[in-house]
Amino acid sequence: MVDKVKKIQSGDVRSASRLIRHIEDNVAEARTTMKDIFPLTGHAHVVGLTGPPGAGKSTLVDGLIDSFRKMGRTVGVIAVDPTSPFTGGAILGDRIRMQRHAEDPGVFVRSVATRGALGGLSRAVGDAIHIMDVMGKDVILVETVGTGQQEVDIMHYAHTVLVVLIPGMGDDIQAIKAGILEIASIFVINKAEREGSSKLRRELVTMLNMAPESAFPGGWRPPILKCDNAFEPEGFSQSVSDLALSINEHYEHLVSKSLIGNWSSRKAATEFNEAIRCAVLDPVLNDLMARGELDAMIVKLVKKETDPYTLAEEIASRYLK
Amino acid sequence: MVDKVKKIQSGDVRSASRLIRHIEDNVAEARTTMKDIFPLTGHAHVVGLTGPPGAGKSTLVDGLIDSFRKMGRTVGVIAVDPTSPFTGGAILGDRIRMQRHAEDPGVFVRSVATRGALGGLSRAVGDAIHIMDVMGKDVILVETVGTGQQEVDIMHYAHTVLVVLIPGMGDDIQAIKAGILEIASIFVINKAEREGSSKLRRELVTMLNMAPESAFPGGWRPPILKCDNAFEPEGFSQSVSDLALSINEHYEHLVSKSLIGNWSSRKAATEFNEAIRCAVLDPVLNDLMARGELDAMIVKLVKKETDPYTLAEEIASRYLK
Repeated sequence: MVDKVKKIQSGDVRSASRLIRHIEDNVAEARTTMKDIFPLTGHAHVVGLTGPPGAGKSTLVDGLIDSFRKMGRTVGVIAVDPTSPFTGGAILGDRIRMQRHAEDPGVFVRSVATRGALGGLSRAVGDAIHIMDVMGKDVILVETVGTGQQEVDIMHYAHTVLVVLIPGMGDDIQAIKAGILEIASIFVINKAEREGSSKLRRELVTMLNMAPESAFPGGWRPPILKCDNAFEPEGFSQSVSDLALSINEHYEHLVSKSLIGNWSSRKAATEFNEAIRCAVLDPVLNDLMARGELDAMIVKLVKKETDPYTLAEEIASRYLK
Repeated sequence: MVDKVKKIQSGDVRSASRLIRHIEDNVAEARTTMKDIFPLTGHAHVVGLTGPPGAGKSTLVDGLIDSFRKMGRTVGVIAVDPTSPFTGGAILGDRIRMQRHAEDPGVFVRSVATRGALGGLSRAVGDAIHIMDVMGKDVILVETVGTGQQEVDIMHYAHTVLVVLIPGMGDDIQAIKAGILEIASIFVINKAEREGSSKLRRELVTMLNMAPESAFPGGWRPPILKCDNAFEPEGFSQSVSDLALSINEHYEHLVSKSLIGNWSSRKAATEFNEAIRCAVLDPVLNDLMARGELDAMIVKLVKKETDPYTLAEEIASRYLK
């Protein structure tokens, strides 16, 4: 066991990959290893990227890898993959382009997905962050697809959250803003050469001006950076270098204002909630499934012989002390 | 209690609104009312709309209300709102435009959100569907923002799922497709006047051609409809009328091929999973919070005096029989 942890500490890619895979598959021994890994964590700067599909997050991640490597920092990347609920398959999509970093031992890229309806994606991502942290990665980039509650939960693991937006998203920006305003450390207007870039910037400025001072812990007002793809590759790399500097600045802000503690509490709460969910709920559902009762109960529900609320209460009184 | 249910059955908007609000707030009595409501459900045709932010789902919902009303059918609309994790606030955004139907007693529009980190949004939406069903709404349109696992879960409540996409989403379409292929009954290419519309259509056709026959229950191959906003309002209304007809066709397909049973089982499983989660997990978390232990545990985790896996297992053995 300890040997496994030592290997991961030495940066061994195969051991780390195997452990991440076991976590995705919910293998029981993996949880034991995680217990040994947890006390060794806390070195890495975790950077989350979130925003709607099509915002070009993968391209930004690719550019950020370059920028951080040029600063002499090692990089871990976690691509959070939406899992198909029926097939259990995950798609890497255009993230494959990141494979050009495959030869660089200072870069470790993994996608994380989970199978089954029981959830646990947020937990798997949290564990993968711990693993890359213990591997010695200085910066860990976590990229999600989508803007749902799950994505917001995952962003709680990050010290620094980049919210990536693109011009021309229409009124739906309102709905996105509702969920992400409070978690953004830095706003990125990507594909800024597109029409509507200045309008989007104005909307974000207005939103920030309307927010109460309490929305800015330690006085950090999220900067709004533009990444312009029209002048690729030079203009784009320059934008991304500026972004990397802004990410470093945010971390220094957290340290200098003693805000790392706030972040640790929030992260611990998210992580713990997930751990409780797995430890309490999974044994109940697994037992019901093993007995074949779950299917029988669903048949009863379809026939309306009972209702889900009553049945769930019966289960609770059967399994809870 | 029964009086409350009778009022909802008579279509009383105030009683229904109050019950939905109580469900959002997780009021215990609301669950008792839901037990009485459950056996009365099963009349409505539930139609889900999902897709990335900015795809124009609200405008489609608005158009579909008109189309179904012209067919003489009553309509319920549930706008699933992403809740801000910090403030607990929900934003209706541009959905406000639907208020032009406010004078029509055949239309009932409600947004559904939930407060707190415990989740339960999927359960609240399921309950709201039951309530509108018992109110006598013929068609219930459920609109989500985002494309995460939570949105996919919510779509399990729908007989007919519209996946709304727009041209120019880039490679991220790959990641979206992974999660939604299996749940789509109808694809809608919205804002089809934009560049890239034919490319998107080709990609969807290729994807459908690559799917195994088992992806099409009863032989239903999801049609790909285009909604063109360039010729608003006439062209757009025509597109939406065609979409409404396609929605009706899909329901007839489910009935004629005896597939309603499959749908009922899938819906019951999703709903039951949620109910178990609430019934088993909430009492544990509430008890820990009431004792002030949850906060103390998080402090221990931040100090790394223990790890979340061990602590969660301790909680499980304390509360589970």
